[in-house]
Amino acid sequence: MSRVPGRLQHAVILAVGSELLTSQKLDTNSLFLTEQLNAYGVAVRYKLVVGDDEDDLATAILDAVSRADLVVITGGLGPTEDDVTRRAVAKAFGLALHEDADVASMIRARFKSRGLDMPDLNRRQALVPEGADILPNSRGAAPGLWMERGNAICLLLPGPPRELRPMFKEILRARIAGQTAGRRLFRRVLTVVGRTESHVEALAQPVYSQWRVPGRRIDTTILASLGQLELHLSTEADDADRATRLLDAATAELSEVLGDGLVSTHGESLEVVVGRLLTSRGQRIALAESCTGGLATCRLTDIPGSSAYVLAGWVVYSNAAKIQLGVDASLIAEHGAVSEPVASALAVQACQRAGADYGLGVTGIAGPGGGSAEKPVGTVWFGLAGTEGPIRTLTARFPGERDRVKFQASQTALDMLRRELQPV
Amino acid sequence: MSRVPGRLQHAVILAVGSELLTSQKLDTNSLFLTEQLNAYGVAVRYKLVVGDDEDDLATAILDAVSRADLVVITGGLGPTEDDVTRRAVAKAFGLALHEDADVASMIRARFKSRGLDMPDLNRRQALVPEGADILPNSRGAAPGLWMERGNAICLLLPGPPRELRPMFKEILRARIAGQTAGRRLFRRVLTVVGRTESHVEALAQPVYSQWRVPGRRIDTTILASLGQLELHLSTEADDADRATRLLDAATAELSEVLGDGLVSTHGESLEVVVGRLLTSRGQRIALAESCTGGLATCRLTDIPGSSAYVLAGWVVYSNAAKIQLGVDASLIAEHGAVSEPVASALAVQACQRAGADYGLGVTGIAGPGGGSAEKPVGTVWFGLAGTEGPIRTLTARFPGERDRVKFQASQTALDMLRRELQPV
Repeated sequence: MSRVPGRLQHAVILAVGSELLTSQKLDTNSLFLTEQLNAYGVAVRYKLVVGDDEDDLATAILDAVSRADLVVITGGLGPTEDDVTRRAVAKAFGLALHEDADVASMIRARFKSRGLDMPDLNRRQALVPEGADILPNSRGAAPGLWMERGNAICLLLPGPPRELRPMFKEILRARIAGQTAGRRLFRRVLTVVGRTESHVEALAQPVYSQWRVPGRRIDTTILASLGQLELHLSTEADDADRATRLLDAATAELSEVLGDGLVSTHGESLEVVVGRLLTSRGQRIALAESCTGGLATCRLTDIPGSSAYVLAGWVVYSNAAKIQLGVDASLIAEHGAVSEPVASALAVQACQRAGADYGLGVTGIAGPGGGSAEKPVGTVWFGLAGTEGPIRTLTARFPGERDRVKFQASQTALDMLRRELQPV
Repeated sequence: MSRVPGRLQHAVILAVGSELLTSQKLDTNSLFLTEQLNAYGVAVRYKLVVGDDEDDLATAILDAVSRADLVVITGGLGPTEDDVTRRAVAKAFGLALHEDADVASMIRARFKSRGLDMPDLNRRQALVPEGADILPNSRGAAPGLWMERGNAICLLLPGPPRELRPMFKEILRARIAGQTAGRRLFRRVLTVVGRTESHVEALAQPVYSQWRVPGRRIDTTILASLGQLELHLSTEADDADRATRLLDAATAELSEVLGDGLVSTHGESLEVVVGRLLTSRGQRIALAESCTGGLATCRLTDIPGSSAYVLAGWVVYSNAAKIQLGVDASLIAEHGAVSEPVASALAVQACQRAGADYGLGVTGIAGPGGGSAEKPVGTVWFGLAGTEGPIRTLTARFPGERDRVKFQASQTALDMLRRELQPV
């Protein structure tokens, strides 16, 4: 059965195993497979996890081959009774299973190399549906299988990632590339901070709409996570240069409307961007954090090489600690620990004490306790200082639980520094 | 439409969102949902992830209601064009969508509480298919929906876990319990730190084997995560008292063999346990961290009420910062910043400066740079001090990337304190 190249477009991933339907285990092979398939322009249409049930799997296979041109089945190729994938495929396609002598001798050799006889049970792993190609497994007993059925290719791959990944890279990449005629998916991820999803949507929509012309087909998705949005742009092309030019132009148009909310055009996090800006300017930072409990400092130090620009952090959780750092006790008495003057003083003291170029100060009420009518839970003050003293302050009120308030506050603190380092 | 109690047996979980079909994001709600459903004796038959495609989702819904008596759909309830769940359900069941005035006013009130007007876009979130029950969302704009259709219940739940989880716990548990017979799954989670999986397995196996008698059916699983193990015990019963007695006895037997490695018999994290111990003893802590970048302090301050016992933290990322805290410069010159004397001095200085009962000091090489033959990447020294001075030190070498080294080091630091506060 031969196929026309350039045909593969949509994949379905079927993960087989009752353990993947418990509360303790997720199928993660699909992330690896998706990355590999996307690179060849094959999009994943849906993903399904089924248990070790022959009929359920056979039904799922028939459904998948009717809706996609590539069906990747992972798992269920072991030697035991509850490894049902081979039988389910045979049933779905009405094919007989026969013991393949070559596969059986590969499995036998594998056992022998460990000084063992092949248990009779493992002969099941040599069962092959008529017409299937064998994909040798360099790391395990069960070979993969490549089958063509009508318009669809159906792949049976072993479940353990340490067997599946090498098989994909060593054998399947080349075979799949041969079926896709060079088309690939190219991506760009824009990180945005300090804007709501609907605000970004409103800004970006007019730009997207410009792309609804032939030759400018770009798919867009907004992904919201805590304190951050990602705009994912993707386009399919045969030609890497053309795709890059298209995505560059799209990114430039979006950058224009997103303004200083745009943190990165390559999906980088705030701590990476701030670290690069500090490094390129040869500047260094110190932080004095109260309600964030050191989270902003900790995030900055997640980045390799950050010891070059993070000098010190103070977690001034008590008033005594704030005063010890150098905040005037009368400021706290007069304005309260959560206040603009205290945030500013924290920034100034951190900067001076550490001999840094910039100081960040954060003080607020993470909750659930400690709020008041005037300063409800989630209220946070931020200060930024430089070698000459205070630069600016800002305040925000964050919704949600304690850990969410902490994270959003650390995000705002790092973003305050980014905006200072990267003026629009 | 009323249902016969004791009927729910099989669930299907449908996760909606094109981002869940990329190589970057997995549906994790299904783990939570599976745990919750299993607790009421409902097994998951299959799990499906589909993109933001109305027709694909409508097909999937019709298929699911024909094969299970509970269909849980997560995600796709946002306000944008690509949030298709409401429309897909309406299409699948041939129902009209109408704007629900109560829901619209809930959403409007939510915006108002933040001083915002509801954008027109968000009216989409008030669309409800005929006959659906509203499940109020205490953490977000989109309500959940409960629909009954033939033999199946169909639930539409918001995608963000912080909205979905409370909705399930606050509203759905009781409603689902009302649809199942009394049999439930009871669980106990034991947290273990500072032991390997095989060590714990070897210790626990003889205990487990005692349970292989009639009336003592307890399922056990060991789950390893970074720097921590969890032993999950579960038993099915109609009778809560009986299950509690059984699990109490099992926990007591395991506690005996696990000794001081056992952090919690209720699945609590180290920071929760340390916080409770400090609170009950009326004692307070200060930390001086280098390679962990404030992570240990940050984790302690994740716990509500931690301001009562966390006085201060210093992130002494540079040598100058260590000396400024009070570490003798000659100690660093003689032994290096990553050394037993420096770890001990950090602990002593943190304790004294803050006027705390205990001080923790952490200094090490998080990598990827900075390692040497003598002190390879992953080497960390820990010091614990009290009001009288140094108590003890320890060292470890952690495998893995920078973030893994940081986390494991924070885990060891907190565990060092726990063992001091909770002697066996």
